[in-house]
Amino acid sequence: MKAAPAYAIHETDLPPGAGGAWRPKAREEEMLLNENYFRLADSYLFITIDRKVKAFLEENPGTKITKLGIGDVTLPLAKAVVDAMSEAVGEMGKKETFKGYSSDQGYPFLQDALVRHYGKKGVTLSQDDVFIGDGAKSDISNILDIFAKENKVLIPDPVYPVYVDTNIMDGRSIQYLSGNASNGFLPLPDKSVHADIIYLCSPNNPTGAVYSMDQLKVWVDYAQAYDSIILFDSAYEVFIGDSSLPSSIFQVPGAKECAIELGSFSKTAGFTGVRCGYTIVPKELTRLSAGKPVSLNSLWKRRQNTKFNGVSYITQRGAEAALGDEGFAQVMQNIAYYKENAGIIADALLELGIWYSGGKNSPYVWLRCPKGMTSWEFFDFLLKQAHVVGTPGSGFGLNGEGYFRLTAFGSRESTIEAVERIKAAIASL
Amino acid sequence: MKAAPAYAIHETDLPPGAGGAWRPKAREEEMLLNENYFRLADSYLFITIDRKVKAFLEENPGTKITKLGIGDVTLPLAKAVVDAMSEAVGEMGKKETFKGYSSDQGYPFLQDALVRHYGKKGVTLSQDDVFIGDGAKSDISNILDIFAKENKVLIPDPVYPVYVDTNIMDGRSIQYLSGNASNGFLPLPDKSVHADIIYLCSPNNPTGAVYSMDQLKVWVDYAQAYDSIILFDSAYEVFIGDSSLPSSIFQVPGAKECAIELGSFSKTAGFTGVRCGYTIVPKELTRLSAGKPVSLNSLWKRRQNTKFNGVSYITQRGAEAALGDEGFAQVMQNIAYYKENAGIIADALLELGIWYSGGKNSPYVWLRCPKGMTSWEFFDFLLKQAHVVGTPGSGFGLNGEGYFRLTAFGSRESTIEAVERIKAAIASL
Repeated sequence: MKAAPAYAIHETDLPPGAGGAWRPKAREEEMLLNENYFRLADSYLFITIDRKVKAFLEENPGTKITKLGIGDVTLPLAKAVVDAMSEAVGEMGKKETFKGYSSDQGYPFLQDALVRHYGKKGVTLSQDDVFIGDGAKSDISNILDIFAKENKVLIPDPVYPVYVDTNIMDGRSIQYLSGNASNGFLPLPDKSVHADIIYLCSPNNPTGAVYSMDQLKVWVDYAQAYDSIILFDSAYEVFIGDSSLPSSIFQVPGAKECAIELGSFSKTAGFTGVRCGYTIVPKELTRLSAGKPVSLNSLWKRRQNTKFNGVSYITQRGAEAALGDEGFAQVMQNIAYYKENAGIIADALLELGIWYSGGKNSPYVWLRCPKGMTSWEFFDFLLKQAHVVGTPGSGFGLNGEGYFRLTAFGSRESTIEAVERIKAAIASL
Repeated sequence: MKAAPAYAIHETDLPPGAGGAWRPKAREEEMLLNENYFRLADSYLFITIDRKVKAFLEENPGTKITKLGIGDVTLPLAKAVVDAMSEAVGEMGKKETFKGYSSDQGYPFLQDALVRHYGKKGVTLSQDDVFIGDGAKSDISNILDIFAKENKVLIPDPVYPVYVDTNIMDGRSIQYLSGNASNGFLPLPDKSVHADIIYLCSPNNPTGAVYSMDQLKVWVDYAQAYDSIILFDSAYEVFIGDSSLPSSIFQVPGAKECAIELGSFSKTAGFTGVRCGYTIVPKELTRLSAGKPVSLNSLWKRRQNTKFNGVSYITQRGAEAALGDEGFAQVMQNIAYYKENAGIIADALLELGIWYSGGKNSPYVWLRCPKGMTSWEFFDFLLKQAHVVGTPGSGFGLNGEGYFRLTAFGSRESTIEAVERIKAAIASL
């Protein structure tokens, strides 16, 4: 059946624009790695934390350490979610109900559930504005594919490190915008600086600060004036209890012409181990190429069609259930539990007279280290004096120095116990 | 608690090498899109197929059409997989067994199951050579992140279109290597041409052809001589029944120094709707940067740590079960079913005297269109005369013109019926 192999290379059939004419390299030329990777700073934050805790426990065996540094959920999935996923697993085991490849963009039942979720906030979306992905971390990294490397990026500091590292990997120039106590860690644009891509995260990780409607409006006005795109990370949106605060940038008029929103079921429904997120790219959002408007929705669709093959049917059924009436009530009980923990931490800091942000519409409490301690000095102090582990703010950027993050994802008991020990330790200072 | 917002931009804290000094753009400068996207050819292949089938059915209402064009599995998940996933869903619903974030690289239980799977082929891997991902399509696209845009890429034609499109998106130069009947659609390297990145897919999509050990050895020797990296797509490896044929490139001595292998549970275990794949980057694989060897395993690890957050625990438990003794026996029954379908198609072509490749160690049968018909002429002929839908070979590259792909993923009954109708139609030519 098969003839002897013959060599043949097309010399003339390069697709238009496939990087120009192909010339054979000399034998001694080496293949090239993405050198931008060597410009990434190594992150020793959590490695150093683990090392310090281990060393302390070796010196003080048997000490009970309480972790308020964890950025992961701890409560189990809601019953409605478990039931929906169990049913979906069963469907996959029967020929009549088995599901193969889905649309890369997601099942309409989940897109529609998100359209309804946004509708409750007064945001009108259409089904094909919504892209289902395997988590906000993937989407917020991958969305950069559709933008040229030459764009200038503006990133608040302190910040979720992924925004910085993904842009360094692409070789983009980054400018940092200072979050600090005087602006409540909610920096606003500097109109003398022109940025193409702007990252905003509200409620913020790590600071827990939440932009007001007026503040987001300033950002939308800036983006419209300067032709920028805002990448709005709304991963913590369900923690917002104050209805005057925006939980989507699309609640701000004009945002559909200048923003992409990245959401997640990780914190909303405890999906950190299940993996589901979504990206909203409104069809109103266009930018010019060769003088003509191009839909960013169509570019992202092309990216996902080519490089992604959709999210598990089982996962999508679970996410749909989390947004249903019964499921949403259940997941909001978990959110309320975490928020009560945050409130317990925040109340203690208020009592101690320590400046903080977050703690209210967020699972994070971001505090100024007492007595002018650096972030790591306070880490060591809390570990040794209170047997509590948190996260040094300096791990989130230069502006995080002197600050510290505590999280509400622990159990009620351990949160109360940790807070009592923190109060005692700080009172002794 | 919060002071009035203040503006502040760090002027001096650019990370080393973050793309050079940041200069504000003039207000009139526009943000730039990734212009490479506009060089992608639109794929109308499956859209055109759907349109033609629809038009035929409008003219001939009630005609029973049989699809042998489908590239998706149709048999349900194996019982052992369903059981494992059901149990995992249950664990996620209980506080004591709930799982949050996993390692980005995957759970050790699944990495170890793959190490054992490779061990059975005589390939020794270590746990951290194995990266669990959400499918081979994602991984084979994302792996390009670690390579510079300046590398020259060699892609066989005909081919799975993702290899081409992902490189065009990055702006890389592509050279095509001709698969044709004279080399059995198994092209070997042209030593006058130097490529940095080489795609091989064996068993091949769309041709069903499988490289022999000797042929893969020629590729490994070439890659070692020219410092190239082979991206080896082994998505169809379980279809190989002939034990003399390699089902992993790592069965070829020296391949660990020049190849990355991308595998999938999509066809192996029917996971097209569940999403799980794996990438093997041996720690032996290094390339130079600034004269020093760099581990590609560490680069890929950094990529995944930054831009990916792991695969669902439930999915990973299902994949583990598919590789267990009981589960693997069950999934191999499904594979045997598909292979019997392929054999039925291949036998008919042999009887008709039509040249084909595949059909034996592959779910695909790739045939030369009879009477010198073009791919689309034969598509129309089969649709009208046999009421069978297949895939025109020209949709997979210039060298696919005059060829046609039939697949074995249909039911036994529809495959037999389609084959009888194809035989009758071709006999009437």
